[in-house]
Amino acid sequence: MPRSIIIDTDPGQDDAIAILLALGSPELDVVGITAVAGNVPLALTSRNVRVICELAGRTDVTVCAGADRPLIRPPVTAEHVHGKTGLDGADLPEPSMALDPRHAVDFIVETLMERPAGSVTLCPLGPLTNIALALAREPRIVPRIREIVLMGGGFFEGGNITPAAEFNIFVDPHAAARVFSSGVPITMVPLDVTHKALTSRARIGAIRALGTKVAEAAAGWLDFFERFDVEKYGSEGGPLHDPCVIAWLLEPHLFAGRACNVEIETGSELTMGMTVVDWWGVTARPKNAFVLNQVDAEGLYARIRRAVARL
Amino acid sequence: MPRSIIIDTDPGQDDAIAILLALGSPELDVVGITAVAGNVPLALTSRNVRVICELAGRTDVTVCAGADRPLIRPPVTAEHVHGKTGLDGADLPEPSMALDPRHAVDFIVETLMERPAGSVTLCPLGPLTNIALALAREPRIVPRIREIVLMGGGFFEGGNITPAAEFNIFVDPHAAARVFSSGVPITMVPLDVTHKALTSRARIGAIRALGTKVAEAAAGWLDFFERFDVEKYGSEGGPLHDPCVIAWLLEPHLFAGRACNVEIETGSELTMGMTVVDWWGVTARPKNAFVLNQVDAEGLYARIRRAVARL
Amino acid sequence: MPRSIIIDTDPGQDDAIAILLALGSPELDVVGITAVAGNVPLALTSRNVRVICELAGRTDVTVCAGADRPLIRPPVTAEHVHGKTGLDGADLPEPSMALDPRHAVDFIVETLMERPAGSVTLCPLGPLTNIALALAREPRIVPRIREIVLMGGGFFEGGNITPAAEFNIFVDPHAAARVFSSGVPITMVPLDVTHKALTSRARIGAIRALGTKVAEAAAGWLDFFERFDVEKYGSEGGPLHDPCVIAWLLEPHLFAGRACNVEIETGSELTMGMTVVDWWGVTARPKNAFVLNQVDAEGLYARIRRAVARL
Amino acid sequence: MPRSIIIDTDPGQDDAIAILLALGSPELDVVGITAVAGNVPLALTSRNVRVICELAGRTDVTVCAGADRPLIRPPVTAEHVHGKTGLDGADLPEPSMALDPRHAVDFIVETLMERPAGSVTLCPLGPLTNIALALAREPRIVPRIREIVLMGGGFFEGGNITPAAEFNIFVDPHAAARVFSSGVPITMVPLDVTHKALTSRARIGAIRALGTKVAEAAAGWLDFFERFDVEKYGSEGGPLHDPCVIAWLLEPHLFAGRACNVEIETGSELTMGMTVVDWWGVTARPKNAFVLNQVDAEGLYARIRRAVARL
Repeated sequence: MPRSIIIDTDPGQDDAIAILLALGSPELDVVGITAVAGNVPLALTSRNVRVICELAGRTDVTVCAGADRPLIRPPVTAEHVHGKTGLDGADLPEPSMALDPRHAVDFIVETLMERPAGSVTLCPLGPLTNIALALAREPRIVPRIREIVLMGGGFFEGGNITPAAEFNIFVDPHAAARVFSSGVPITMVPLDVTHKALTSRARIGAIRALGTKVAEAAAGWLDFFERFDVEKYGSEGGPLHDPCVIAWLLEPHLFAGRACNVEIETGSELTMGMTVVDWWGVTARPKNAFVLNQVDAEGLYARIRRAVARL
Repeated sequence: MPRSIIIDTDPGQDDAIAILLALGSPELDVVGITAVAGNVPLALTSRNVRVICELAGRTDVTVCAGADRPLIRPPVTAEHVHGKTGLDGADLPEPSMALDPRHAVDFIVETLMERPAGSVTLCPLGPLTNIALALAREPRIVPRIREIVLMGGGFFEGGNITPAAEFNIFVDPHAAARVFSSGVPITMVPLDVTHKALTSRARIGAIRALGTKVAEAAAGWLDFFERFDVEKYGSEGGPLHDPCVIAWLLEPHLFAGRACNVEIETGSELTMGMTVVDWWGVTARPKNAFVLNQVDAEGLYARIRRAVARL
Repeated sequence: MPRSIIIDTDPGQDDAIAILLALGSPELDVVGITAVAGNVPLALTSRNVRVICELAGRTDVTVCAGADRPLIRPPVTAEHVHGKTGLDGADLPEPSMALDPRHAVDFIVETLMERPAGSVTLCPLGPLTNIALALAREPRIVPRIREIVLMGGGFFEGGNITPAAEFNIFVDPHAAARVFSSGVPITMVPLDVTHKALTSRARIGAIRALGTKVAEAAAGWLDFFERFDVEKYGSEGGPLHDPCVIAWLLEPHLFAGRACNVEIETGSELTMGMTVVDWWGVTARPKNAFVLNQVDAEGLYARIRRAVARL
Repeated sequence: MPRSIIIDTDPGQDDAIAILLALGSPELDVVGITAVAGNVPLALTSRNVRVICELAGRTDVTVCAGADRPLIRPPVTAEHVHGKTGLDGADLPEPSMALDPRHAVDFIVETLMERPAGSVTLCPLGPLTNIALALAREPRIVPRIREIVLMGGGFFEGGNITPAAEFNIFVDPHAAARVFSSGVPITMVPLDVTHKALTSRARIGAIRALGTKVAEAAAGWLDFFERFDVEKYGSEGGPLHDPCVIAWLLEPHLFAGRACNVEIETGSELTMGMTVVDWWGVTARPKNAFVLNQVDAEGLYARIRRAVARL
């Protein structure tokens, strides 16, 4: 039986690849996709999710819009990375499928309360605002969530939006603080993993070579996406953040990590949104997350290619 | 036409008096009362609201339960002030009226979206968790709220739960930060006002002398409530915090204040939850609240007595 | 036998009055006066101390220059209050007496180590930089200081340079943190006292009426100094901060206060430099200062007039 | 002509190796060695410096004791790493050479003011208390210091004493903040370098094989020192922190790095003392340090062996 997941996301080209990976993997049942403000504003992320679903031929997926800004801090977006639409790089039509009328938070809460306890995994790919609001709105979901597998943070890789903080956590550090202290089992996919999952000519080429419309769009997104990191950091490719969350569910043997304490900095502007990961166990703080730090990038890209091929 | 209000509250004896004052004032239409965790846990505050409504003979009032803990920080309660039940001081039966099935946040959002824009005033008497969640859940309520009149904070009076912070704001400083930066018109009733609205033998006696069951309970609550401050601070009576919010709506001429910038400290444990009020305008920060600092206590108690008499 | 004091100061008109009060009081032996950057830069404060000593006919006083900026933070000055020179308001000649070649910190340390333990009181009237540096430079002075009586901070009066912080502590909060945690007996004269020691026409007039050159300068300074507060706060006069420190040594019966815990905020920009005074004992933190909150202003001004008359 | 350096240190076995490396290198003129509280209390660090000098046969070196605790925060030591004496691992006699009577801060200031401007390099190997105090005591040294080359901090390696902070900076973050904002040219040797300079059987063996008394002690210290990291982190050896500072002066071609902005966290307990290094230039903050991140470990150990051989 496929594993049920809700993807909470702010596409974003790498979010798009993650969604395609999920929709193209029979091991997963995408119960719904919820949009949150992040890389671009909510109006665009909730549009982009539907663009991606239509590209994948999955207009049946429930798509809900959620929070339009972080819990406490003013919004921060990343058009400098993702382009004006958040999905620059592929020329796709405006979506015709409708948003579900429910708020993302209500959808998450209802799904968790209706389905068997321990059956639904949450996969947040953007700021954790919707997840924190769901926990606040209905605390009885805590023991019903199977696991939260999230992309966010960094430790030995530092940050990206600031020297200390990764974008998703920086944008809503208070939501992250709520999630990491919730008691829900958490697997964290930080920059330490995703910076080891770089795009390359060969990897993007292998996807494009599939020759389908989905493959063409995916390759276009990856082309666009890698520009920022190549130019900014002189790296060899772009770090494929969000697909690692889905890949971890599909092929955990591609990854390595360990259980750690993770605290979120919410008190200092200098380090705001930093994920303080006690990798070496130098504190006595309780382990509250399984933190990944290694990935088999070849395996990851092969799996993505396979999923794209299936759509 | 009476003014429509929603009272968000965590009773607490002074909350109880505030609710009686509202229910006993024909100028106000209490659209609903929402409970939040604060002085005592949510199970008790949502019970206590119903105890008070039944005492007032108003089993028709919509009562909803809301957030059971602050947005980010762990719960803090104040049984040392309010007693184990939160309503120690009067011996009243368990309520038989039911809670409305809706979550407080949904009730607040629905009411604001259904009723004419600018017609409903929110009156938070406890931590601002429910209000912040409503703003996060449905940002379109912002221009529809007539005003938020809240009890919380202090400036020239300092704090009460810590040297720098007043209880309501300390318990959920992040919610307060969200509310004060929301753009909704805010009137703040701080300790600077409420410490000028002390109970006294005469004032409590005047209420008790009404001789009704409601008057007897109100006087019992006030007797219990004043003990803490009299013993702790050597003050002449207990500061009647929450009724000032309702009284401001009824008789604004009893109060004085000025428009100020108010920022909420969320970054430092030492001053966590402090309301930094720029009373003298020494910063260039925008004025985001009308801050009261004076009250005619005789007028306030006379008004309370009148309302209690009407119930 | 007169009580030995070292005045550490950043004149400032109110510092000037404090120095005149000390020099004109036979109960005090001013062992030296050390200058620190504060109201105006060090070049001016070290000049101003000598202007004041020459006005008082006391060219024999040891005057040393100390720190030219706070321990960690960049300098902040207050020419908007004190005028360009720091001593605007009286037209006095450039001083001809020389600075002592020693650094203020060395002078403080040497004096404390040479004189009998417990015989010298430090009277800081400005930022605490020199005092903190002396404690760091020679920790053996800790048990040798009789007492530190300082002007700084505020609690129920809030701040003046920011809503939360008083100027002296705000300028060098780290130095203040070091001093308040040093274990030396501290008496703190906050804004809560000094805002009850306002100048007035009658009070300044009584000094001017002495008809001496010193009285004329003192009255001129007070005239200039009160302008800021009268215009800014609409108060009836200017708060005579620093003389309260000296007056406390001379006539403690003019004051009231209590032993409290005082912590200094150094972690948050919003409340930076706040003196968090646990006046009501709501924390379990140890009492580390005697905090004054009341003054008999008439008595204070009478004493100042008497000292000025003696010079 | 040899380059003049002052070593400011808190030995510590790795400090000891750094001192031996400096004393055994004719390219360097060790003008003096100043002790500070750090790995162990000042009484021990000031003793240990003399133990090391006597071992090296250099009883002529000026050794001064400095600050016995950090500027603001309470002392923290690291006996769990360095053993009770700070120099566990070699059995050496109590030193008979005397401390210079001058305070370390006075020695640093005097040396910088007497010697030609730009001729003296400061090499801090421990908490930066003495250096910050010297800057505060005599700001005219700023343009006279040739350079500060310091061991401290970490970025992509994180911290060691906490998940975010390296020991030297954590112990006195305020001193570090003062030093990094001083305008003096700074080269920073962080954990990112020193964790690439691990001890090994071969490397320690090569030193021991020299067969001298100095070599024996050095090898003993390295044996002791590596135990902590091998046990704690499962690393292959101990990170030879402090000798990298001296080696950088001797053989800069062994290292690589870049100019960056470095800010010190002083506002949050969670990340206190973190060196926030903007390695990728994601902020607009000015570059204030040259930050090393690579070392040729073989070259480093060969150089150390050569210096030990010369003693």
